[in-house]
Amino acid sequence: MKATRYEGNKTFNVIETEVEAPAKDDVRIKVAYSGVCGTDVHIYHGMMDKRVNFPITIGHEMSGTIDAVGDNVTTYKVGDKVVVRPLDDRGVKPSDKGFNHICEDLKFIGIDSPGSMQQYWNVPAFTLHKLKTTTDLKLAALIEPLSVAVHDVRLSQLKHKETAVVLGGGPIGLLVAMVAKNTGATVIISEINPVRISKAQDLGFDVINPTHTDLIQYVKEKTEGRLADVVFEVAGVQPALDVMTEIAGIRGRIVMVAIHGEKKNIDLFKFFWKELKLIGARVYEKEDYEKSIQLITDNQLPFEQLITDIQPLSKIQEVFENIDKKPDGLKILMDCQL
Amino acid sequence: MKATRYEGNKTFNVIETEVEAPAKDDVRIKVAYSGVCGTDVHIYHGMMDKRVNFPITIGHEMSGTIDAVGDNVTTYKVGDKVVVRPLDDRGVKPSDKGFNHICEDLKFIGIDSPGSMQQYWNVPAFTLHKLKTTTDLKLAALIEPLSVAVHDVRLSQLKHKETAVVLGGGPIGLLVAMVAKNTGATVIISEINPVRISKAQDLGFDVINPTHTDLIQYVKEKTEGRLADVVFEVAGVQPALDVMTEIAGIRGRIVMVAIHGEKKNIDLFKFFWKELKLIGARVYEKEDYEKSIQLITDNQLPFEQLITDIQPLSKIQEVFENIDKKPDGLKILMDCQL
Repeated sequence: MKATRYEGNKTFNVIETEVEAPAKDDVRIKVAYSGVCGTDVHIYHGMMDKRVNFPITIGHEMSGTIDAVGDNVTTYKVGDKVVVRPLDDRGVKPSDKGFNHICEDLKFIGIDSPGSMQQYWNVPAFTLHKLKTTTDLKLAALIEPLSVAVHDVRLSQLKHKETAVVLGGGPIGLLVAMVAKNTGATVIISEINPVRISKAQDLGFDVINPTHTDLIQYVKEKTEGRLADVVFEVAGVQPALDVMTEIAGIRGRIVMVAIHGEKKNIDLFKFFWKELKLIGARVYEKEDYEKSIQLITDNQLPFEQLITDIQPLSKIQEVFENIDKKPDGLKILMDCQL
Repeated sequence: MKATRYEGNKTFNVIETEVEAPAKDDVRIKVAYSGVCGTDVHIYHGMMDKRVNFPITIGHEMSGTIDAVGDNVTTYKVGDKVVVRPLDDRGVKPSDKGFNHICEDLKFIGIDSPGSMQQYWNVPAFTLHKLKTTTDLKLAALIEPLSVAVHDVRLSQLKHKETAVVLGGGPIGLLVAMVAKNTGATVIISEINPVRISKAQDLGFDVINPTHTDLIQYVKEKTEGRLADVVFEVAGVQPALDVMTEIAGIRGRIVMVAIHGEKKNIDLFKFFWKELKLIGARVYEKEDYEKSIQLITDNQLPFEQLITDIQPLSKIQEVFENIDKKPDGLKILMDCQL
């Protein structure tokens, strides 16, 4: 079978290797599609060299079909369509207070152990979620990032008729916006990349370029002075942190989706003055995956439009190089059967 | 009657003035005690010169007895013991979403309009809370700051058997610690001033000086690795902001009680990683006052020990000068009948 390997130093290889039998609690998945995540790009950029033991097969946004099951696996069978929730929480401790998805000793499959950018992938059965026979496997590769968005929106407690502003219109930002809109909220996206602005507009969103339009004034007018009930910070840049406390209204909730590697300047006075809440949100829980699977299976939202490219495994080096050259795309899938 | 007046430039005067009849929706209160709040000290330091129209009588932490009622006032009578909730929310708008206590056009009585550091004080009847005939008027002057603490603890959703760390053991920090302990939580106070440390220990608290003891390690050991469920940031200094995200455990809640006039450095990565929440908390709501009145009336907590000095109105200049010279004290009350 074909497997990709990240070798460090911005280099991928595609190798031929043996298909292995699954261990007794594992299944072997014939991977259909594996999406390129921002985290995969971080790994490629060397930003996670301390954590990642290369050579390693990365990838965790996937869909596939069970190809073989280990001796102890009774709840899944060959032919089942599945996705993996790539959280290995076997190290969970009482001090994690039951929050397994963010437990201190969490291992993330596809970063801390081999991932899905290969033709066949052996994973523990406890990581699986079963799809319907009708679920589209291409769209199903979006279930993992969609679950991030479902988790973010759930933690925000966004309600029908509230107003949400999404700072950043990349793949996660758009998924957050889609899920937020689906709850019945009014959604405004703030984005500066013209290609992404255009894509978000195609998806039917109200999109503001904050370098051209005064975002604070715009949100104020749109809400008759109430400002945003919820702000999703998905941009990860200081201007977003500066504006988030301005556009949040009284008792507004700000969900921190972006990963800020360094300490950042925050207007704590606004938190005090308007009784704002900052809510950290990381990955997803079981219920987020279930909601996400339902949204993808029903296909009521324009998920297809988020997939901007599909490439065979053999093109992996080119795919990552092109992301650096032209960071306008949204979701790129690797077709793991080619 | 005697009335104090802040004249600007760190100067108070005590003047003789006429007792005035209350307007039709107001009552006249014979003020018993008026506590010195950190905000009053800020005013004295000139830090609120842009907001405060001096000469003005300041003060808002008070207790007293109704001395006369306006023509429209039917729910209060002469002789009623009362406290004022000093929030003038008459400018509330629909965009405030019902959060009157922090409405955009809120006027704070004692800052934006005359306060309680005088013998008689006319205030709108809607600001009043009635006390029991048995309520001690000296302790009742603590109801306003205690309501801040009750509000902070309520917003934190602190539960029985959880662990709370209070960063800063000044008057508000100690009140927060007392209310937190009263919910059945384990409370740790972090404070660096030796006099305040000693006071907090006298009150029966577990107090850590973070310049001598590793607070993170201490909290970890005390909680068997769970770390704090709730952190109250009452210190208002960068080291407290640095440590708060370290000592909060998974899904920990950090309540921002301190007022940070400038943007500060915050470890947003920790918010993401542990799914922390930052909760801004300002003043109080009606229910906090009611809870606070009950706590003071029942006198089950060692409130008396927080009052470190009582001085007559005539000594107001000296009182504020001494606070600067020796910032060790806790709550100083002005006896408004002397």
